Amino acid sequence: MNIRFYNARIYTMEPGREIFHGEVWIKDDRIAQVAEDALLQKLYAEHFLPNLHWDLEIDCKDDLLMPGLKNGHTHSPMTFLRSLADDKPLQDWLHTDVFPNEEKLTPDDIYDFARLAILEYLSGGTTSIFDMYINPPVVAQACMDSGFRCVLTSGLNDFTSSVDQTLREFETLNHINPLISYRLGFHAEYTTSPDRLKALADAAGSMKAPVYTHLAETKKEVEECRERYGMSPVAYLNSIGMFDYGGGGFHCVHVDEEDIRILKDRKVSVITNPASNCKLASGIAPIKAFLDAGVNVGIGTDGAASNNCLDMWREIYLTAVLAKLREEDAACIGADRVLSMAVSGNAKAMGLESADCLSQGKLADLILVDLKAPNMVPEHHIPKNLVYAGSRENVRLTMIGGRILYKDGEFFIGESADSILQKCEIRAKRIFASL
Amino acid sequence: MNIRFYNARIYTMEPGREIFHGEVWIKDDRIAQVAEDALLQKLYAEHFLPNLHWDLEIDCKDDLLMPGLKNGHTHSPMTFLRSLADDKPLQDWLHTDVFPNEEKLTPDDIYDFARLAILEYLSGGTTSIFDMYINPPVVAQACMDSGFRCVLTSGLNDFTSSVDQTLREFETLNHINPLISYRLGFHAEYTTSPDRLKALADAAGSMKAPVYTHLAETKKEVEECRERYGMSPVAYLNSIGMFDYGGGGFHCVHVDEEDIRILKDRKVSVITNPASNCKLASGIAPIKAFLDAGVNVGIGTDGAASNNCLDMWREIYLTAVLAKLREEDAACIGADRVLSMAVSGNAKAMGLESADCLSQGKLADLILVDLKAPNMVPEHHIPKNLVYAGSRENVRLTMIGGRILYKDGEFFIGESADSILQKCEIRAKRIFASL
Repeated sequence: MNIRFYNARIYTMEPGREIFHGEVWIKDDRIAQVAEDALLQKLYAEHFLPNLHWDLEIDCKDDLLMPGLKNGHTHSPMTFLRSLADDKPLQDWLHTDVFPNEEKLTPDDIYDFARLAILEYLSGGTTSIFDMYINPPVVAQACMDSGFRCVLTSGLNDFTSSVDQTLREFETLNHINPLISYRLGFHAEYTTSPDRLKALADAAGSMKAPVYTHLAETKKEVEECRERYGMSPVAYLNSIGMFDYGGGGFHCVHVDEEDIRILKDRKVSVITNPASNCKLASGIAPIKAFLDAGVNVGIGTDGAASNNCLDMWREIYLTAVLAKLREEDAACIGADRVLSMAVSGNAKAMGLESADCLSQGKLADLILVDLKAPNMVPEHHIPKNLVYAGSRENVRLTMIGGRILYKDGEFFIGESADSILQKCEIRAKRIFASL
Repeated sequence: MNIRFYNARIYTMEPGREIFHGEVWIKDDRIAQVAEDALLQKLYAEHFLPNLHWDLEIDCKDDLLMPGLKNGHTHSPMTFLRSLADDKPLQDWLHTDVFPNEEKLTPDDIYDFARLAILEYLSGGTTSIFDMYINPPVVAQACMDSGFRCVLTSGLNDFTSSVDQTLREFETLNHINPLISYRLGFHAEYTTSPDRLKALADAAGSMKAPVYTHLAETKKEVEECRERYGMSPVAYLNSIGMFDYGGGGFHCVHVDEEDIRILKDRKVSVITNPASNCKLASGIAPIKAFLDAGVNVGIGTDGAASNNCLDMWREIYLTAVLAKLREEDAACIGADRVLSMAVSGNAKAMGLESADCLSQGKLADLILVDLKAPNMVPEHHIPKNLVYAGSRENVRLTMIGGRILYKDGEFFIGESADSILQKCEIRAKRIFASL
């Protein structure tokens, strides 16, 4: 398929490149050309452009083409728990509401609730996710069937999964489909025994593979780890070689200077989850300190159980304003910088550098954003409008790997949104029938 | 006009009343009936219902009818400054970007940028605002021409407006149109001389009228007031009788126990503005302490210059999660309670008790919210879905005073959205031509 987006404002999100007017051409799953008007005139003059064949030409109506947002940390099927149990403390929520109900999930439940999450991702302009949940092969299937790009990681802990299973998933899910990849991971230091952690660290070492986990989310977690090992979670995991080949930490709210130095030295990305950290009263991550130290930072929603939606626009906004609040400095971070966390920051963390900007040869994962909406006028500064006033409602079109999966309220994922929503309501009623 | 909303889930937001299935009937600008299914069956059996004449019948498709959101503090025409100058400190922003550019505004600019704001309010389900800006009569005109409900207050300070002008506006704007009312107010203690403040307090006393103002927004404001008067802004204003008949304080971030006691005793409402307080790094208001003390709390967006949008869904969300963050307690406040702040809390603060819930005789200011959207499924708890996952994109219809002003992306305010957006872009280019 050759697809032409014309009459667009283009925000490639390459470092230092301003927004310009022009066209983006797609060939199959890749970007074939990103052209400013001046180049287009040259191509026209050389009779190159008029002779191209297009399967589809899309008038962007002067709206904004930009890379799709990436969601650096999520648990997609947890949509089944949305708004079930909020306004209560973390431990109560986890042990009363989350764990017991997860046991009731069938693979078909996981599949449909992942598809429900995909509806939210697509309509909100998210083109890839970094997903951790029980039964990654089922989540992979839901993504493949939807044409959705997904990096999976294991939620290995002492109760579900095993190191062997994680390694088997690594082999199979990294070769199943171009849309799917898999990274080594585990749930958290506090849910995984030292033996398992060491076995995983050894395997990662022999494979030279990065490892991903929940890290330093709450004060309590850090305090208990210090009691167990005399070290912070970051320092302990580093001491057993877990981060010898990098990886990533989800949350990273409660870290000290030494932790930040380790994250930087070991090339461990931080994925911040501000909505979840607020609602569970966990705290505000020190984003400015990470950036000052040169740590790569991405942004994720966490699952719908703790968020309760899967909206990267809200996460981007929160990342910016909570940093200002924490530092008591409105100037401590800029809109462009925060947007880049949700695109190139996440891409780097997830190993998706092939989709980190709009340029020739990159994956055609992109979105079209309405600039003629009441919340986007006037246009003093488009990235600031996106970060501080923008919203998922401004997303007009979402393309993944050269395929349009969402446009103006309609989904193209092989099943209607209504059907998925209805199935999920029925499944939720069954799962919680005993409540 | 007789309008019938049927097949609706109805959230009247009367204290303690659960969501139920039924109908809402509108006669002219008022609610004529809110009926549960059981009552409807009775009315049918009595042959009452089939004989009614309806000008319009709306199938709500099992979606949610609820009172329109109120915006308890905004500066509508400041949409002209959206994203002009962010990511910089408050004082720099105010003196370099806000004040000098406001001097260039013509009445027609104010009119059109107020209309731009109204587009955002309507599409986001906001049915009334409490607006403070230069030239309230022009904002009133923009609201009347749009069919939009607005409570205005004076932005009296030492540079624009005067006490006499404020009192003249009070007379004229309180009798101009059922959609418009006007309250005494002034910009802030730090922009208004003691003479003016005392003149206003005396006038308010003789009129037995409540007074509204920006209050305790920043640490600096409170410190400087203490240097000037040896008292906090709340205590100083109370000492000169400003709050003898109640009123309201916008922001109220930096208050102590004594301030909270005064606010309670004087029946002064607090209007919290979390997005603005975050982005300008002002702090988190002590919402739980206000509620514990019995202070009435409303919620507002502040202007688009500091927000940068006018989205009450984001404010409601932020009010809830920032309270949890501040108290380090996920259980400290519930979704229902926060939603009520944006409806009955604001209504009480603004003197709009006639629109504080859906019940017989109240103003027909209501919205229809889509419950079959990906972010709203499953339906474990509708108010939690609204607060933690809801968004302005879920608003299907907005009615004010019995008139539908917004429905499924279309506005009915006498001018197309495209025309307003285009005019505002052109005006912004003229105002900032010298930049």
